[in-house]
Amino acid sequence: MTEPVSVTPRRGRRPGAPDTRAAILAAARELFAANGFSGTTIRAIAAAAGVDAALVHHYFGAKDDLFVSALELPVDPRAALAPAIAAGPDGAGERMLRVFLSVWDNPEHRLPLIGLARGLFDPGGQRLMREGFLPAVLEPIGVALGLERPEVRMPLLASQVLGLILVRYVLKVEPVASMPTDHVVAIYAPTLQRYLTGPLPTP
Amino acid sequence: MTEPVSVTPRRGRRPGAPDTRAAILAAARELFAANGFSGTTIRAIAAAAGVDAALVHHYFGAKDDLFVSALELPVDPRAALAPAIAAGPDGAGERMLRVFLSVWDNPEHRLPLIGLARGLFDPGGQRLMREGFLPAVLEPIGVALGLERPEVRMPLLASQVLGLILVRYVLKVEPVASMPTDHVVAIYAPTLQRYLTGPLPTP
Repeated sequence: MTEPVSVTPRRGRRPGAPDTRAAILAAARELFAANGFSGTTIRAIAAAAGVDAALVHHYFGAKDDLFVSALELPVDPRAALAPAIAAGPDGAGERMLRVFLSVWDNPEHRLPLIGLARGLFDPGGQRLMREGFLPAVLEPIGVALGLERPEVRMPLLASQVLGLILVRYVLKVEPVASMPTDHVVAIYAPTLQRYLTGPLPTP
Repeated sequence: MTEPVSVTPRRGRRPGAPDTRAAILAAARELFAANGFSGTTIRAIAAAAGVDAALVHHYFGAKDDLFVSALELPVDPRAALAPAIAAGPDGAGERMLRVFLSVWDNPEHRLPLIGLARGLFDPGGQRLMREGFLPAVLEPIGVALGLERPEVRMPLLASQVLGLILVRYVLKVEPVASMPTDHVVAIYAPTLQRYLTGPLPTP
């Protein structure tokens, strides 16, 4: 198949061929959800979108970048968390939590993020989270932090962050929903820090 | 309206009129989801089901008992947690967590519980949780434990229990999904205990 070039881009906002970009993202979402992150190649995505693999790399970079683009997150968590990570594991629980809260407390980000969270209950969304978001996004953050056993610690961190998101933003349970940031941090940062650097049961 | 008596009960398992019981439960689910726990009266449920309020009390007891019946939980959390609560707040985090794990680790309970958890993303289910389960089930547990500020502490406990349920049972993220009970307890019981009896920010 040849690349479907759009002569008159429909929205005209991005350079290049927006239909091609959209086709690549649609193919990526479908294949990542069906086959997980490790089971999906750039080559397979390119074939499904009817384009050359080099074009996928050109538009989206490496596979983990394409994965993050396909999730259509309002914020790239790797970029948002980079300063929190660069300062190392001490206090990382509080710094990361403040980043999460600043993203979720922004009303512009709230709805797209709740839409994503809803995907946790359908099989494709579960697979994207379990076999995509965790290995491609969360675990590399744990590795970059220099954690011991990041493959255990990052799912623990995720379990409390997901539960906090559910209670504060989805269910809007008071007093958590209206709690000032500093109170949320006082309560939850010690939990996250313990999961990042505290004792773990020996395997 | 008169009570619709079923002369030949369809399943024949329960004494009395199963159609009446089913009609009361259906009306209760609808009204609790639409109006919350405090906004729903036994009288309104009886009227919606076309029966007398005394019959609702006769079949289901008090409003919180009817609410728990309407949720169709595989286990009544108040009964399951009673021994954990009776021993008081010291160590209650671990005792309650062991009860949660024993219920969720039972494959017979898993599917109905995941169905309920999915309801957290639709408006009726959110209202049932926020304005029903929390005030009618969780907060009384906090009061029975003798906690200081149970209306703050029980939502914190819920946030970690919900996140653990998501990661271990819904998303099945390893190594948490296959972790032995004692490891889960070593990791999560201190978190729950801190939420139950640890310091809180001054309001």
